[in-house]
Formats: sequence, structure tokens, C-alpha cells
Amino acid sequence: MKERFIALYRVRADAASIEARAAAIAVEQSVEMPLEAIDAPEVLREVAGRVETIEDRGGGVFDVGIALAVATVDGDAGQLLNMAFGNTSLHDDAVLQDLELSADLAAQFGGPRHGVAGLRSRARASGRALTCSAIKPQGLPPARLAELAGRLAAGGLDFVKDDHGLADQRYAPFAARVPGCAAAVRRAGAITGHPTRYVPNLCGDAPAMRRQVALARDEGLDTVMIAPLLAGFANVQALVRDFPDMAFIAHPTMGGAARIAPALLIGKLFPLIGADAVIFPNHGGRFGYSEATCRRIAATARAPGPGLRGALPVPAGGMTLARVPEMLDFYGSETMLLIGGSLLAAGERLTERTTAFTHAVAAHSYGHSS
Amino acid sequence: MKERFIALYRVRADAASIEARAAAIAVEQSVEMPLEAIDAPEVLREVAGRVETIEDRGGGVFDVGIALAVATVDGDAGQLLNMAFGNTSLHDDAVLQDLELSADLAAQFGGPRHGVAGLRSRARASGRALTCSAIKPQGLPPARLAELAGRLAAGGLDFVKDDHGLADQRYAPFAARVPGCAAAVRRAGAITGHPTRYVPNLCGDAPAMRRQVALARDEGLDTVMIAPLLAGFANVQALVRDFPDMAFIAHPTMGGAARIAPALLIGKLFPLIGADAVIFPNHGGRFGYSEATCRRIAATARAPGPGLRGALPVPAGGMTLARVPEMLDFYGSETMLLIGGSLLAAGERLTERTTAFTHAVAAHSYGHSS
Repeated sequence: MKERFIALYRVRADAASIEARAAAIAVEQSVEMPLEAIDAPEVLREVAGRVETIEDRGGGVFDVGIALAVATVDGDAGQLLNMAFGNTSLHDDAVLQDLELSADLAAQFGGPRHGVAGLRSRARASGRALTCSAIKPQGLPPARLAELAGRLAAGGLDFVKDDHGLADQRYAPFAARVPGCAAAVRRAGAITGHPTRYVPNLCGDAPAMRRQVALARDEGLDTVMIAPLLAGFANVQALVRDFPDMAFIAHPTMGGAARIAPALLIGKLFPLIGADAVIFPNHGGRFGYSEATCRRIAATARAPGPGLRGALPVPAGGMTLARVPEMLDFYGSETMLLIGGSLLAAGERLTERTTAFTHAVAAHSYGHSS
Repeated sequence: MKERFIALYRVRADAASIEARAAAIAVEQSVEMPLEAIDAPEVLREVAGRVETIEDRGGGVFDVGIALAVATVDGDAGQLLNMAFGNTSLHDDAVLQDLELSADLAAQFGGPRHGVAGLRSRARASGRALTCSAIKPQGLPPARLAELAGRLAAGGLDFVKDDHGLADQRYAPFAARVPGCAAAVRRAGAITGHPTRYVPNLCGDAPAMRRQVALARDEGLDTVMIAPLLAGFANVQALVRDFPDMAFIAHPTMGGAARIAPALLIGKLFPLIGADAVIFPNHGGRFGYSEATCRRIAATARAPGPGLRGALPVPAGGMTLARVPEMLDFYGSETMLLIGGSLLAAGERLTERTTAFTHAVAAHSYGHSS
């Protein structure tokens, strides 16, 4: 059990204390007891965390790289979080900045099973960005949600997803709304000729999610959405493993991104445990992510780790039709644009505005960017 | 679906923008689209979030109370997090400070099934604090862990728990180490006459956790540990519901407490979904929680919500024997003290030091505090 992975922490400290603080994190995230009290030499040698690097970034901030034993994770995605950041997340001086995954560790999880290529093939789209919208507000009954899904699909979108707040509420239970939305999207696709996918949001405990994926598959669906921080990482990992025909889109809700770097959490960890696409807040919308953060999330998602397929980045959050050209210049074609509320705000003209969205994406010239 | 619960956020903002920011949070945590684009009056009336209070706390910080619809949660603990803090957790200007649970909402979850009284009865202890230690370091094989568990139990502890890093690693698989530890603790109990409980740590995905609880029950165990932020809140809720004879001790790993107030996350939410005891970092140890925070966590855990049993607070994290009297003065007898590493550091004298711990707790006079 000698293999290691590197967890990189950004730590606020002064120069006099950073070495001790780094050593304390190495202990906290591995054996969690005083090293001098450990009388098993193989544990000290192979399991105890090791401080590998301390880099002064100025302004009282240090980057600390700690080598943790792959054997403590042993292929369990919950353990990966637990070992990389578990107790240290309770300290407000440390942010988990990155994980350097070895090919062996990456292979234990497997990453996206469909990834960019699988989502492109679902959308029969090459050379352009993909498009997505969301049905909401929650509180609507199943028939109203299905109607919205159909009108969005009529605009030629690639994916129409549930709002992440749609769960299994009595006013619109999963088993009642998903078949209706699937049928409405199917009908619209038969008219447009475009294979628009409806993407239901998984919710509840793990057995409920399994029933929901099975129901989705029975309805002819092949893509679902899941929130890893609600479901639990190990449960996402198990669903991805047990439903290999399904593509999974990860939603960042409860990401509390201030304590785990967004490019790590959304761009690297979500794909690692099997997300084929990752939704994240675009810069300039209603969330505070910077351009640099968004660029890093997208780049990381497309190349999440050694030997892993790329996941599709899905910038979202208060996006509008007017921003489509600028977003496509910024992200390039290896992207899915997700516009929700501002399409829905078109009211009676929902399908027309959606069509304008899909046409703008199809017509864009990707000269500026990768 | 008219009932509401109040989510209280601590928001950094200036006076000119706080009203708009509060309104934006109310939308984000409910319908997540522009209100003017919603043409369903019942959704605006019954589902959209409502700003109830804005209180200026000075220094550019405001407390914002938002009334959210109980119907959007509908008894799903994952949804409770999603609706209370989901997307807003991605904003670094807001901390989820508190949730005011109605009796109806509390009843949907049920809270601790055993709570303080159930844990006391397991320990056959009244009028004193309970005692706990942890077996570690991880990396040890099952036989070594069992030996440690037995030597700790020989000191008369009430509970001997797994370190939260012990999962299902190949070097000490759950199914191999739990029967061994259970047997060692049972043997020690037969000698001391004290009903010491061994408490295994659940890990992996939800089906794995179910198998582990069943295995624990087969071994005669009646108390387990779980990390709600790894397992997923809805999965904790389901386990508590489906294994009513088991008591659950919650571990705060991945609690990222800087973005959800610790008294809310650990003191209120963990008990709400069924934790009978909650472990948290004590002040003055290796974590930065203040005395005031610890006092609030303990008080909240003991009275987590209307109609709910109290959970037992378990201060921990770098505690020593020398601190026992001070901790008991601070927390009183409605508490379980957890000392791990500093007992284990006794090496050959592990059982003697453990005995000193249990005797100190038994002999303490609780004059100073409640």
C-alpha cells in the first residue's frame, strides 16, 4: 500500500507556524493521532500523511502539498473526500485547492462513462456547442411542467432538464412528472426531427434514486441529473457503475465552493466519480465566479485525470440569449450552454425564443477560441 | 402547501444592496427564476421564498430571514439542504446561520430515536457524563484494532468507536474488523461488568451501509457512527427510519463549518435527521471553535427542535485526561467525553489511562453547571 496521491491545500498562516500547521494537516488527514504514539512502523511508513511541499504565495498564504496513501481511499469516493478534506474542512484556515490523481487512483473511479463524445452523439451534434434549458418554477403540477418541457424541446434544444429543486414533492411526484415530460419532449422531437433529451433530476435516498433511474430508462431516457453533495459521492459512484448506459449531469448545489476550489470540486471530482457533464455558475451571472475560475473549471472538466474521458462543461446561472456569442467565444464548441429562466420569461413566445437560442448556437463561428 | 420554515442567512452586503440581495436569495432558494416570468399565482403565493426580516448587525453584515415553503422539502432531508442552502452555498457572501423548524417539519424527520436517554440506558449511567474513545491509527490490521478496542474497553468506557477514517479498506475490511472488535469489547465487558458498546463507522454507498448495520446488529451491536456529509442526508434519514433499534452517532467530517453555522449543522440538523449523539470539535483543542460556539452546539443538540428527543453532545478533537474536570464543568453531565489519541499514546498503559479517564468522569462533582 505504498502509492500516494497529493492533496494541495491553500493555508492561511505565518511563516513561523506553517511547517507545524502542514504537519498537523498531514496527521489529521491520515492517522489522526500523535505520530509518536504509533508503534506500527508500517503505518508510519505507508499510511501517515507526508508533507511534500510548502510554497509561500505571499500575503500570509501558503500552498501545502501532502502525500496521502491511496490505500486509505481504496476506491470509495466517500473516503476520497473524507481523507482529502474531512476534518480539515472544519478548520477555516484551509481550502482544498487540488488533488493530483495518479492513473491508478483515477482508474479506481473510472470517470465519465460517456463524456463529451457520448453527449455529442446523443445530440447528433458535431462542431458546435450543445444547448440545454431547465423546466421550472417548482410548485407547478406535472402537466404544466410537461407542457413547458415540450415547448422548450420544440425550439430544438439538445437537452431539457429538471430544475435542481424538482424532487419528489407531492405537488409533482417524480413518477408522475417524468413520464409526462419524457412524452412531451418525445412528441416535440418527432416534429423537429431533433433528438432532444429530457433529463430528470434524481432525489431522495440511494434506493429511491435507483428506482428513478430505472423508471427513466423505462421511459426511453438515457441521461439524468444528480447533485453529488446531496447524494453522497459514494452513491454517485455506485449509480454510475450500475447504470452504464446512462449519462450523468452533475449539479453543484451545496458545493459551498469557498472551501473547496471550484475547479477541483466541479471540474475534477464530479467527473472523476462519473459525471459526463458538469453544471457550474458562469462568470458575469448571478454568482461570483471569476472568468479565470470558469476557464479553469471548463479546462479541468474536459481533462479530469489520467486515462479518464472528458466531461462536458455546462456554464449556467442567470444566462441570457444576448450572451450566447460571447460565451461561445469564451468556452468554444466543447461546451453546453444552459439557459433557463430567461427563456421561460418569454411566456407565450417560449418556443420562439428557444429556437433563437438553438439557432444562435448552431450559427456561431468558433474562430476566436479552442 | 402554505406552511413555511425560516432560513436565516448571515450576509455580507452594504445597506444599499441588502434588500435586493435578500430578495435574490429568496428566489434562488425557491423558484429560481424571475418572479415576473411566473404566471402561476399559486406558485407565487405558496412556493416562492419571502423575505421576512433583514437585521443590520453592523460592520457590513446583515441577518436575513427568508420564509421557504415546507412543501418544497416534503420530508426529504436532502431537499432540506438543497432548499435551505443549495445554490446559495456557491455564493461566498452568505452563511446559513439557522433554520427555524416548525413542529410539522420536525415531525417529518423525527429526530433522534434514542437520544440522550437511549444512550444513557445503553451505558447504564445516570447523573454523570458518558465516556468514549476511538480505535486508531488506520492502517492497522483487524487483530490489532480489536486488541486496542479490548484494552480501551477494559478501562470501563461507555463507548469505543472506530476512527472516522476506518472504512472498508483492504488492510482492515469492515466485515473482518467489526466482529473482532465487537468480540474483544464483549470479552472486556464480561470482566469489568460494564456494558461497553463498540461503535463501528459506516462507509461506502447506501446499500453497503445497510449491509454494515445488519452485520453490526448480527454481532449484537446497537450503536453505529455515520458521517452525514459523506453519506448524504437522505441516506442517513432512511437508515435511521429502517433500523429503529440502532442508535446513530454523527461525525462532522466534511462539515466545512465556515459556511453553515456549526450549531445549525451539527447541533440541529444532524439530530433532526436522526443522530442520537453528535461529535464536534471542542474549544481549546486542535480546532478553532470558540467556547461560545461549543456551548451553542451542545445546547442545540440537547433540544434540536419542537417535539424531538435531545441528542447527546460529544466534544472531541485533541482532548486530554487533564481537561476532564474543566470540560465537565463546562458541559455538565448531559455530555459524552471523547478522548482518542491521548489515551492511545499511553502505549502499554492504555487500559490504566483509560481507567483513570472513566474514574475521573464518574467521580466528578457537577456543581458548577447544568
